[in-house]
Amino acid sequence: MPGKTDLSELNCSLARTLAIVGDWWTLLIVRDACIGVRRFGDFQDSLGIAKNILATRLQQLCAAGIMARSGPERRPLYQLTEKGRALLPAMVALMQWGDRFASANKPPVIVTDTSGRPIAPVTLRNNRGDVASEDVRFAAGPGANARTRAFLDALRTAEMKRDV
Amino acid sequence: MPGKTDLSELNCSLARTLAIVGDWWTLLIVRDACIGVRRFGDFQDSLGIAKNILATRLQQLCAAGIMARSGPERRPLYQLTEKGRALLPAMVALMQWGDRFASANKPPVIVTDTSGRPIAPVTLRNNRGDVASEDVRFAAGPGANARTRAFLDALRTAEMKRDV
Repeated sequence: MPGKTDLSELNCSLARTLAIVGDWWTLLIVRDACIGVRRFGDFQDSLGIAKNILATRLQQLCAAGIMARSGPERRPLYQLTEKGRALLPAMVALMQWGDRFASANKPPVIVTDTSGRPIAPVTLRNNRGDVASEDVRFAAGPGANARTRAFLDALRTAEMKRDV
Repeated sequence: MPGKTDLSELNCSLARTLAIVGDWWTLLIVRDACIGVRRFGDFQDSLGIAKNILATRLQQLCAAGIMARSGPERRPLYQLTEKGRALLPAMVALMQWGDRFASANKPPVIVTDTSGRPIAPVTLRNNRGDVASEDVRFAAGPGANARTRAFLDALRTAEMKRDV
């Protein structure tokens, strides 16, 4: 797939994230690790995934610094690193979208704090509170290249024309 | 790929979400639509994606109710529906992860409100405030099947044993 290589070269942090964790199995392995799965066999049971695919994905996740392997060579433990745990808000947000739109509001799994209090729907906020999706804007950041700047400028111009 | 069909059958809202939007291009098309791209040619320019892949993905997004097609037959507009806009928190959370871990903290694109105030890092919260990733727990929800319940029970038991 030519897309695989190109993706990380796009001037976009979402594309770069998807180049690392954009494979379905990868995020589901991260999900299992969040829930507490540690052993190869338990990932396999949970996901019904082929051994060779699971082995490759775990290796990639360790190479990417998202998971770390420890314990005895023949019965290793796989755990999330800080970089891996940092995926949790995105993962829960994707899960909540699925609860609403793909699980008919009947969540198979609910996410709580240690006392069982539910995690609220993930929202976008600034220092004043929630920001509605229609009020979200995108602008060139410090890592933008010339193409990204031109692209965002062109869209803003087109939008202003549309508003007239 | 056998995984494609199985994924939506897993008793998990994340798997069901990935079955719908788990393709890289799909989320990047949604990203472009959020930023304001509306036309086929503009998606193509932005993503450098092959015409046939883009056409298929747009068709799938419309069929899934995430985007809607309007305007003249020969020059249609593609816009996000409410279901599509509801992906924004997950998308921004993935983007922020990439800003931090894949773009060396130099975001190509920054996300703001209408006044240019930045969107804060997406966090998990309950009604009392932020919940740290190590304090997040998973439990069977109203849509859990017997297998999911057994799986979560087994993990809890294993965890209690480990704590002893």
